[in-house]
Amino acid sequence: MSTTIFARAEDVENAFYEAIARADLDALMSVWADDEEVVCIHPTGQRLCGVAAIQESWRAIFSGNSSLTVRITRSVRWSGMLIAVHSVVETFYLGNEPTPHGPMLATNVFQRGANGWRLLSHHASAAAEISETMPLGERDGMPRTLH
Amino acid sequence: MSTTIFARAEDVENAFYEAIARADLDALMSVWADDEEVVCIHPTGQRLCGVAAIQESWRAIFSGNSSLTVRITRSVRWSGMLIAVHSVVETFYLGNEPTPHGPMLATNVFQRGANGWRLLSHHASAAAEISETMPLGERDGMPRTLH
Repeated sequence: MSTTIFARAEDVENAFYEAIARADLDALMSVWADDEEVVCIHPTGQRLCGVAAIQESWRAIFSGNSSLTVRITRSVRWSGMLIAVHSVVETFYLGNEPTPHGPMLATNVFQRGANGWRLLSHHASAAAEISETMPLGERDGMPRTLH
Repeated sequence: MSTTIFARAEDVENAFYEAIARADLDALMSVWADDEEVVCIHPTGQRLCGVAAIQESWRAIFSGNSSLTVRITRSVRWSGMLIAVHSVVETFYLGNEPTPHGPMLATNVFQRGANGWRLLSHHASAAAEISETMPLGERDGMPRTLH
């Protein structure tokens, strides 16, 4: 779908959320792996399998919002040679509203292939109020590398 | 925490859900990686980080239910050398009730260490009605191995 090479899982994740902020469907779809078993779970509870279903869902999301900016915090990262996983907290900003929506929790799964890293799975769901159950706030962005 | 060796990620996943069915807290905790950054996200939206918080949450769950049996279907699996990820649909049975609860969607992340595979992260959230957006029903249990 795309010839963009993502050298790190973080680059894929950044491109994913930047594409959402720009409502850029082509850019959004370019981050997914060329693998029919890619999975996207929206906070509505729909599990979409395959590029076509995922693309259609984001087309609908982009057509329904003026703009959607997602800020990522409190990342917990696990990295292997071929698969990496990030657990993140997502905070949403709609249009020019100053008040954030969310938070959401997302588990993002990445795969390294011949053309660099790509997104395999995005599982997002509503978060309870962020509280003392999340002691990792001060360790944002510290990757755990297993290899 | 445990000397049990899990040779495959699937074995960890089976042990996790079997421990839930038996309300066996020791067995449940034995499947997690010896890594302080293990994560458990309950369908309530709480993200728990670390073994102590996870153990306390399951202790509360087990004390509040007579029994909880989870059936796993529609697995989508990605496997690397050191990390494996399963996306599954969970259906719950409470006590002796014949009617299932849920479904839930879970993303389970596994790590291979010196003592075999262990659970790194369990992200569960409520699913919308399972429908045509999930065409993988006939492919249950077919693993994708990347190495």
